[in-house]
Amino acid sequence: MQKYWADEFGNPSSAHIAGRRAKEAVAKARKQVAELINCQPAEIIFTSGATESNNLVFLGLLLSGAGNRNKIVVSAIEHKAVLEPAKLLAKHGFEVAILPVDDQGVVKLDAAAEIIDQKTSLLSVHTANNEIGTIQPVKELAALAHAKGAYFHTDAAQALGKMELNVEAIDCDFASFSAHKIYGPKGVGALFTRGGPTRWPFEKPLCGGGQEGGLRPGTINVPGVVGFGEACKQVKHQFNDTVAKLTELTNIFIELLKEKFPTAIINTPNAPRLPGVVSVSFPNLHGDLLLSNLPAYCFSRGSACDSGAISPSHVLKQIINNHDIIDNTVRFSFGKNILEDDFVIFMEKIKMLLNKLSEYEKDL
Amino acid sequence: MQKYWADEFGNPSSAHIAGRRAKEAVAKARKQVAELINCQPAEIIFTSGATESNNLVFLGLLLSGAGNRNKIVVSAIEHKAVLEPAKLLAKHGFEVAILPVDDQGVVKLDAAAEIIDQKTSLLSVHTANNEIGTIQPVKELAALAHAKGAYFHTDAAQALGKMELNVEAIDCDFASFSAHKIYGPKGVGALFTRGGPTRWPFEKPLCGGGQEGGLRPGTINVPGVVGFGEACKQVKHQFNDTVAKLTELTNIFIELLKEKFPTAIINTPNAPRLPGVVSVSFPNLHGDLLLSNLPAYCFSRGSACDSGAISPSHVLKQIINNHDIIDNTVRFSFGKNILEDDFVIFMEKIKMLLNKLSEYEKDL
Repeated sequence: MQKYWADEFGNPSSAHIAGRRAKEAVAKARKQVAELINCQPAEIIFTSGATESNNLVFLGLLLSGAGNRNKIVVSAIEHKAVLEPAKLLAKHGFEVAILPVDDQGVVKLDAAAEIIDQKTSLLSVHTANNEIGTIQPVKELAALAHAKGAYFHTDAAQALGKMELNVEAIDCDFASFSAHKIYGPKGVGALFTRGGPTRWPFEKPLCGGGQEGGLRPGTINVPGVVGFGEACKQVKHQFNDTVAKLTELTNIFIELLKEKFPTAIINTPNAPRLPGVVSVSFPNLHGDLLLSNLPAYCFSRGSACDSGAISPSHVLKQIINNHDIIDNTVRFSFGKNILEDDFVIFMEKIKMLLNKLSEYEKDL
Repeated sequence: MQKYWADEFGNPSSAHIAGRRAKEAVAKARKQVAELINCQPAEIIFTSGATESNNLVFLGLLLSGAGNRNKIVVSAIEHKAVLEPAKLLAKHGFEVAILPVDDQGVVKLDAAAEIIDQKTSLLSVHTANNEIGTIQPVKELAALAHAKGAYFHTDAAQALGKMELNVEAIDCDFASFSAHKIYGPKGVGALFTRGGPTRWPFEKPLCGGGQEGGLRPGTINVPGVVGFGEACKQVKHQFNDTVAKLTELTNIFIELLKEKFPTAIINTPNAPRLPGVVSVSFPNLHGDLLLSNLPAYCFSRGSACDSGAISPSHVLKQIINNHDIIDNTVRFSFGKNILEDDFVIFMEKIKMLLNKLSEYEKDL
């Protein structure tokens, strides 16, 4: 990216030489993203991230009007970047149906087959969940949607780089991605749209210059796009090694947890899950207490995007019946460069905290 | 920005320590932007650029519904990032009225006073034009809008850093900015919204996590925002010197042009204009010919955002009656670090080109 901050200031929409060089850099990045998810470069629209990508699809449909297909279907555990646009559509005359998940956090396909009908215009289910890491049966869901003439969108922000992700094989119509989820820069992402902008089926909600086939007007974030492309290239190159290493680390983490905290509950143990994301409930330890007593560690009670919210995670509510246990739940995530020793030290600290708390309670 | 690429990866929405450090950096940048345009930090919404900022206002109004005030008013020479959203509103039941400009490219206030009425919900006029540099009477336009109970929005992307820009003095309700117009990074910008997100009068069109008061959800582009803040700080610090130097250079450029090309037409000579932007028509030289024969120089026939368009600039059509002269028009822009010698060499090259062309025509 450095080159495009420091030396190459061209606007890819300019006809002059600086513009043409920037245009070539963007074309290269578009190819790199397309190669990672197995689509044509023309099917990639650069956006500011998955939230904007999701909004393009939902707003496009909203502005196209409900018509005969006034129903959209989303899973109960979508990220807010899907649930909130869905609410906006509900406010504007669409029926929004919610797909239930089982206790492992996986969408129930039998329920989906009943809910998705001829009135459905759009089904949106994420490829993998951001809080609990469960992988969804997106290929089957795409087939269910298409059988009823509906479009299928998947928010794949959390999944990218951590599992095989082939938009051709999934047969989705739209997919959303964020660069920062694969060590790329913040503020850039993409929307995969089948057939490219010329086959976009909805109104184009963002208007301005004709950039990105008119779907995403505005001066292109050249350094960001270049960084996203390079991140995709690296993910593709290192994919097998990364996933193998991350899976091994995740297994080690879980085994250590079970050994040191026999009463801890690993959530959705039987679901297919992304490596590197583990949701854990400690029966006698409130999540806030754990977070505030280990301030040097970066983990969380839920999605960062929900951190302003007071209410418990809508995802955990779907898989855990007990409100106290939801409060005792934390989300750990890590990359492939973390060490087993880091896990051991971290768990020692949790253990010390638990001991201190039980001493304190005895004193009361 | 470097620090936030290389070391500080925190998401400002995360509660943990990395998140809190990122949050502080974003707060500092918000203050820097606010100080440059004289508003409260809470009135700044970070976006991906002025195009998105404009779209937030227009889409918000669209989704709020036309109601009794179903009319919006824009000037004839707005950037496409305003004209195209206006067209979308026209498609969705709004009446769009176009404010005419005089032959100097300045909005006619008497016409505006007639066109803006009790049915008008929004008036949008840019602070200064991107192609010809004319400065608009935005303070007077804001007063006209407010007198009729309408909101006033100004796309100030081109104006920022090149003229005094005080949203309090203008008394606008919304203003749009892009960082890359003041040597900041591409892919980041801001929307000024009076009173902040809690007083946003329209539907919030982009939905997701609650970032930026719910007006601009999605993980914040921390390095981009930090870069924008720093660019604003530098603009503020160097403002008087920059504008003085740029004005001097612009005067030199125009005098040299007049001296070397007595038949060249400097467009809108009597309008208040931004320094550093000059629109020139060479009576006997097609703009494309000039551009293609001086490939090492970066200048243009119009807005980069229109470069895909075949039709002549809608801005030039408002100030030049003759189609041929529009084709002979090019836009020069430069920064304060350009040298007078650069101008001289550049004009010599144009002169050589004109001589060569006249030789060639004689030969025919």
